[in-house]
Amino acid sequence: MNFKFLRELIVPAQTKIVLLIMDGLGGLPLEPGGKTELETAYKPNLEALAAQSALGLTVPVAPGITPGSGPGHLAIFGYDPLEFEIGRGALEAIGADFELGPDDVAARGNFCSVDAAGLITDRRAGRIPTEAGKELAELLRTIKIEGIEFFVVPVKEHRFAFVMRAPGLGDALTETDPQKNGVPALPVRALKPDSKKAARLVNQFIGEARKELTGKHPANMILLRGFARYPTLPTYREVFGLSAAAIALSGMYRGVARLVGMEILRIDGDAISDEFTTLEKNWNEFDFFYLHIKKTDTCGENGDFAGKVHVIEEVDALMPRLMALQPDVLIIGGDHSSPAVLKAHSWHPVPTLLYSRFVRADGIAEFGERACARGSLGVLPAKDVMPIALANAGRIAKYGA
Amino acid sequence: MNFKFLRELIVPAQTKIVLLIMDGLGGLPLEPGGKTELETAYKPNLEALAAQSALGLTVPVAPGITPGSGPGHLAIFGYDPLEFEIGRGALEAIGADFELGPDDVAARGNFCSVDAAGLITDRRAGRIPTEAGKELAELLRTIKIEGIEFFVVPVKEHRFAFVMRAPGLGDALTETDPQKNGVPALPVRALKPDSKKAARLVNQFIGEARKELTGKHPANMILLRGFARYPTLPTYREVFGLSAAAIALSGMYRGVARLVGMEILRIDGDAISDEFTTLEKNWNEFDFFYLHIKKTDTCGENGDFAGKVHVIEEVDALMPRLMALQPDVLIIGGDHSSPAVLKAHSWHPVPTLLYSRFVRADGIAEFGERACARGSLGVLPAKDVMPIALANAGRIAKYGA
Repeated sequence: MNFKFLRELIVPAQTKIVLLIMDGLGGLPLEPGGKTELETAYKPNLEALAAQSALGLTVPVAPGITPGSGPGHLAIFGYDPLEFEIGRGALEAIGADFELGPDDVAARGNFCSVDAAGLITDRRAGRIPTEAGKELAELLRTIKIEGIEFFVVPVKEHRFAFVMRAPGLGDALTETDPQKNGVPALPVRALKPDSKKAARLVNQFIGEARKELTGKHPANMILLRGFARYPTLPTYREVFGLSAAAIALSGMYRGVARLVGMEILRIDGDAISDEFTTLEKNWNEFDFFYLHIKKTDTCGENGDFAGKVHVIEEVDALMPRLMALQPDVLIIGGDHSSPAVLKAHSWHPVPTLLYSRFVRADGIAEFGERACARGSLGVLPAKDVMPIALANAGRIAKYGA
Repeated sequence: MNFKFLRELIVPAQTKIVLLIMDGLGGLPLEPGGKTELETAYKPNLEALAAQSALGLTVPVAPGITPGSGPGHLAIFGYDPLEFEIGRGALEAIGADFELGPDDVAARGNFCSVDAAGLITDRRAGRIPTEAGKELAELLRTIKIEGIEFFVVPVKEHRFAFVMRAPGLGDALTETDPQKNGVPALPVRALKPDSKKAARLVNQFIGEARKELTGKHPANMILLRGFARYPTLPTYREVFGLSAAAIALSGMYRGVARLVGMEILRIDGDAISDEFTTLEKNWNEFDFFYLHIKKTDTCGENGDFAGKVHVIEEVDALMPRLMALQPDVLIIGGDHSSPAVLKAHSWHPVPTLLYSRFVRADGIAEFGERACARGSLGVLPAKDVMPIALANAGRIAKYGA
């Protein structure tokens, strides 16, 4: 469904929607015929809720496609991830909690090693310690070029986010990483006329960076990849008529939420329960809350089946606090699957639960991959969940007479 | 999902995919409340496999649409049958096992009867015996016109495939069959300037054919319909990165497989077991195998419910040979439904099973229309099956960061 169509049907209401995302929620059994992480978890609260909900499996991007965090989140936020895109550089910057603005072009940066002739000897600078990366990033921040601002945000080890800010910068820029050793870093070239200014300035910056890093071997040069402008997305206010807030412990998810116009709420602490406390404190201030649980995905990617089960159980135990707030609509799902057996994101559809007073409940008192396969939401594109949630929240008017 | 998008995500892998198509697999019960052909069949091997598989129902073209063999196969091969088309003439030619090339324009031909004034008296020439059709086709093959090659391939009774080969032939051509008796055959007209050359040459051929067939009543004239160029389809290598092979006993299916770049494997014999022998012999040579079983459809179209059940049981008995090869991904489905009670192709979604080590098994130890309706693949477009198979085969990289 396109936004133009939906936008015209949106009506105001005094209702509250919660989107609870357990990152990488979908899983696989350890052994054929066994239970998945979600099916294994002891979760009486989620099961009681499932019995009053409509269940289904969401397909984040398209059948068979394994989504990164960017497209996975855009989809469950209601945006077609094939229509809207967050470039790699932009995602790196927002993941580093950098507040990207409309005049910004971002890139993934990393320190590398070059020899006396300028030929690359290690594209990752021996994975220098994060502390060393921070110091070098500070050094690069001293570079000044007239008419443009540069930002260098350390990420981890040799990696950093690179952002340049000036009006009228294009992002049709080639990468400097030659993807092999024994050759020099490539100069940035503009692929379109509108990016010539950006190419000239970034090459100037790289020249200055080389000087600054002289003698800093192994991290004596930089490489930049994935140049991308600030992605301009329609906001939750514009397309759904919602004042929306985000509660997330990781920068990447706060960043994506900020891109769709959500307000980022402060969390005191770094436990999942602290996220629920933030929800409670801000309950009266917004129509919509996005609550992000990172650890399900972390455990999945680490191959930690039991850990992922435990995180789900931790969320289950906190559910009474959420239900006490009496949300009108509650969606519980994920942005993609991350089965522990695969130690990675995967293409499998994601178990999803939609609770509201007006939902047609399936009466299935289970919440798991196979239970959701029997649910009345069916196997549906993730981007279709938000309109159904809005409808249940009384926020979509009748179409046609 | 468009091919351009998918193509950029394809990565190589050392995995093998088998697509086992039982033509016209989907069925209907003989009596309301009864079992379909597939549900009736004794098939312990398929049921054991179903328990370890994800099940679903595929929609070949669109809801309610009964597909011909061309669109049905394009869809299950992963091609949007509304975007890619095999013209009727081209399908007739490849069905006659003619190796269509890029310079070819093909048509469906048939012999007809005309009276002394050239008016049609029987559009099918009294359905002359197949042998007679063969002799007349040979006669037409003696016609030579400079700068162009003609091919006349007998099909059955009065029918033949007609192909003309020359560089730069267009296929925007009107048909010569007036669809009624008492009028003369129509001359071919070009509907676009690029088809003028083809119109002139085919009219010249028809003039020569009339002369050759003088005195051959009832088959003393020809009619040509459905002019179509060689359909240029992206190949399996191009879009899926697969080296693919086809095992099919009927020309039509070998032809469609050839159009998507599959290599056609030789089958010694004409039994289904001979097809499995071909699979075994060539197992090490390809990434992907398409194995086509024709008889399910033949029985369905003949209204032979028991016969169709028997063919399914025959395939089931051969399954251990296929499983012994240890395919990484196995899809079992059909190109469309052909319920015996309808004696025809039908619009009903097609039961489909997807087996792999990484599939999220539904745990349903049944393979039938109703079991598949409960499966986690849901009711899905047939063209979406290949991307899911590729994902399970480790051949699609993550999309986005």
